[in-house]
Amino acid sequence: MRLALDEARAAGERGEVPVGAVLVQAGRVIATRGNERESRNDPTAHAELLVLRDAAAILGGWRILDATLYVTLEPCPMCAGALVQARVARLVYGAADPKAGAAGSLLDLTSHPGLNHTVDVMGGVLADEAGELLRRFFAVRR
Amino acid sequence: MRLALDEARAAGERGEVPVGAVLVQAGRVIATRGNERESRNDPTAHAELLVLRDAAAILGGWRILDATLYVTLEPCPMCAGALVQARVARLVYGAADPKAGAAGSLLDLTSHPGLNHTVDVMGGVLADEAGELLRRFFAVRR
Repeated sequence: MRLALDEARAAGERGEVPVGAVLVQAGRVIATRGNERESRNDPTAHAELLVLRDAAAILGGWRILDATLYVTLEPCPMCAGALVQARVARLVYGAADPKAGAAGSLLDLTSHPGLNHTVDVMGGVLADEAGELLRRFFAVRR
Repeated sequence: MRLALDEARAAGERGEVPVGAVLVQAGRVIATRGNERESRNDPTAHAELLVLRDAAAILGGWRILDATLYVTLEPCPMCAGALVQARVARLVYGAADPKAGAAGSLLDLTSHPGLNHTVDVMGGVLADEAGELLRRFFAVRR
């Protein structure tokens, strides 16, 4: 999660909402990315989606099995849905997102009984640091 | 939707699950794409996400306002979440997906009262043709 926080900080310095993500498989860091929505003009360029795409390319298949995704903010519905698509086993997130979090806050796509894959979730890891980055970012802009 | 069906058919011929999508804004076709999950080894390369990324790049911003996305199959949670992220106004889909559809079948992300954007939805357009493409594809493989 320290690595994910570094990515979040770097994203904030680029003018992006400061969120960072890291994908780990078998104890090895496969990919790390920060949010790039503004710089890429891409509504799908959240840190989680970018890291899943990188990891799949590196691992050579769209199923990213036995992996853990670390992200500084609870994923939105798009990103939680992508974790299910990629068959990611575990999600560890920092700050909860009561407004749009789809790993248990606003809704829960990680353990939906109807979907063909569920994701184990642990939230609140280094949540204060992750939340503080976001608060400072929005305080400057509002 | 005819264009989206052409994209779906082309995807099927490439060995992909046959789904196609078209993004229209102000009566103009901005982007058309088919599913590329297998060929790109990318869990996020569903037709809808690809067409949103293309359209945002062409239009020069991550908000794709006043647009309609046509897709041959009801979107999964990832793709429905991406429509919300991109602020797409309208979704027109072909076949419903009772197993994973997130525009009203298994769940509904297009009109969630807690999310910051809702999408108008019309389903069942050329549904027989879209569904038949999928049935034939899976019949050969099972």
